[in-house]
Amino acid sequence: MSVLSAGATIGILGGGQLGRMLAGAAAQLGFDTSIYCPESDCPAARVAAAHTIGAYSDHAALLAWAKTCDVVTYEFENVPVIAAEALIAAGVLVRPGAKPLEVSQDRVAEKSFLQCSGIATADFASVDQASDVDAPIKRFGGQGILKTRRDGYDGKGQARLESGDDYEAAHKSLGHAPCILESLVPFICEISVIIARDLSGTSRCYDVPRNEHVNGILRRSTVPAFIEPGVADRACEAAQALADALDYVGVLALEFFVLEDGSLLANEFAPRVHNSGHWTPEACATGQFEQHIRAVAGWSLGSVTRFHDVEMANLLGDEALAPPAALLDDAVLTLYGKRDAKPGRKMGHVVKRLS
Amino acid sequence: MSVLSAGATIGILGGGQLGRMLAGAAAQLGFDTSIYCPESDCPAARVAAAHTIGAYSDHAALLAWAKTCDVVTYEFENVPVIAAEALIAAGVLVRPGAKPLEVSQDRVAEKSFLQCSGIATADFASVDQASDVDAPIKRFGGQGILKTRRDGYDGKGQARLESGDDYEAAHKSLGHAPCILESLVPFICEISVIIARDLSGTSRCYDVPRNEHVNGILRRSTVPAFIEPGVADRACEAAQALADALDYVGVLALEFFVLEDGSLLANEFAPRVHNSGHWTPEACATGQFEQHIRAVAGWSLGSVTRFHDVEMANLLGDEALAPPAALLDDAVLTLYGKRDAKPGRKMGHVVKRLS
Repeated sequence: MSVLSAGATIGILGGGQLGRMLAGAAAQLGFDTSIYCPESDCPAARVAAAHTIGAYSDHAALLAWAKTCDVVTYEFENVPVIAAEALIAAGVLVRPGAKPLEVSQDRVAEKSFLQCSGIATADFASVDQASDVDAPIKRFGGQGILKTRRDGYDGKGQARLESGDDYEAAHKSLGHAPCILESLVPFICEISVIIARDLSGTSRCYDVPRNEHVNGILRRSTVPAFIEPGVADRACEAAQALADALDYVGVLALEFFVLEDGSLLANEFAPRVHNSGHWTPEACATGQFEQHIRAVAGWSLGSVTRFHDVEMANLLGDEALAPPAALLDDAVLTLYGKRDAKPGRKMGHVVKRLS
Repeated sequence: MSVLSAGATIGILGGGQLGRMLAGAAAQLGFDTSIYCPESDCPAARVAAAHTIGAYSDHAALLAWAKTCDVVTYEFENVPVIAAEALIAAGVLVRPGAKPLEVSQDRVAEKSFLQCSGIATADFASVDQASDVDAPIKRFGGQGILKTRRDGYDGKGQARLESGDDYEAAHKSLGHAPCILESLVPFICEISVIIARDLSGTSRCYDVPRNEHVNGILRRSTVPAFIEPGVADRACEAAQALADALDYVGVLALEFFVLEDGSLLANEFAPRVHNSGHWTPEACATGQFEQHIRAVAGWSLGSVTRFHDVEMANLLGDEALAPPAALLDDAVLTLYGKRDAKPGRKMGHVVKRLS
């Protein structure tokens, strides 16, 4: 069924914090959720009606699970494309589909798709061997960032090249994986657009947050972003072009570098709810998790009106173990229920309403 | 342990919508929840990490379950007092304890306790037989409301007496249960105080809602209540006196009739989160469900600052089946995941932000 009634079951591929928050939003709307992931004890399963433990490569198990769901969505972008395609081929409703996975999993495919959708990115080149580096790095002014094409996140899988001579060591540090070389971008700040698009093709953008990364990990998002209105408008237009090009259903996030002259270069997109939108439930009429659930359930989108200026800060590693007393009074704390506070691991976040 | 760390397990006695919303709030703070109730498929269990099916009278099963929890609370006031006492005797932390159950389960004990705490109520008398009616009904001006002492809710277990002659028929309609006779109260409106009190004895009241009941069921709560500030202050002082007298930990609701001269008569209290506080998550810095979880976890209370004027309306029976499209855009919908939309049954609620 294209439009779900309350009481229907929403299947979520992945059991992390995004799945946990999606499950919470689904429950508020009267849905049951069912989690599929390889881990036996994961944050999302502990707030869901059902949990199937299985590998993403086990298509038989995936399909048996999907048959218990009215729609299937995903909370992370590294779900194997062939798994999503197998479900779709078997008649399962998968929203937002296999295409966004395919495009976002490979940095070369992603940047190419963005450019084809009319969205500017940093200059880049696919690098499979040392001889592929010379021409692009010259074009980039002698420097660049080498990134693995796949599986990079939170600053992992990247190395900066100060010259072409750094390539071999960098490539080794990246496990000799297929790579992309990107030009350095002299950005003044980073922003992202959190956009939702429903079955009818209507889309809505939240106000744009300004994002600060430290060691490649998002540290803080602030709204408003204190950028020119025209810049935010162009970012939203680009996100809408991307969502339309993907015939997207659900929430996606598109990250941008803002240059000194106000021009924008898209960096990457995530076909899911996004860390830089974690302030939306506390600041807006409808949060990003509810918005994604509405969209994949075939419902109309909720209002994205923002009521507060906010700052969202991630709690990494043991920062989450002892939340400061001051925090607890006037800020909204969200913890993800992860058992193990490894250094740098995203354990929770805090949203402060500034007005 | 008196103060819980994130990752601890909060046990909830009862599996209804209040347990469901408490479990959601607990999950946001990083807690696991474990539900104990007799039903195999209940709204709360579908969002909790664990679920034990058992009778409240089965103390062995209750105790075995409670041993898996770091603290136990309840989502409804008809948990048997002896069950709570058995848990406490076995060393289980039960918050807010057995006393609030004992007092609130019996309308005579409740009104007596309120009066002893300095809180005015309607005049009342305990009625065990026909001869108990004559004196009080004369004192009340010839009329009164006969209510069962126990197990009444949502207007059930009540009958109006237009004279003493109505007693026998009314008592029969109430199943010959032990009753209380209450004087009629010429109220101009009904309000309630939602108050939270933490382990240290600090308490905080939310802004007071005005409540409209239809056929004994809460239909709508509106904030502000448009009553004199002094009236709201006195209501909050009374609620604080009650919470202190019970050495209460958690959220409780005290309902009042407001008379034309601004005086207040307390009607009843609920030792739990309350339907008339369902607007707090959408309108305030901290919602009542999070507030209750903080208190029973031994945490300090969150801010009760209110950001919006709101109207909360219950969705009864099949009103919840097809939420109007208009609702979905600018109002916040909460559905309880109940399988069966019986007439008059509370299936969900909608919060509209009015400013």
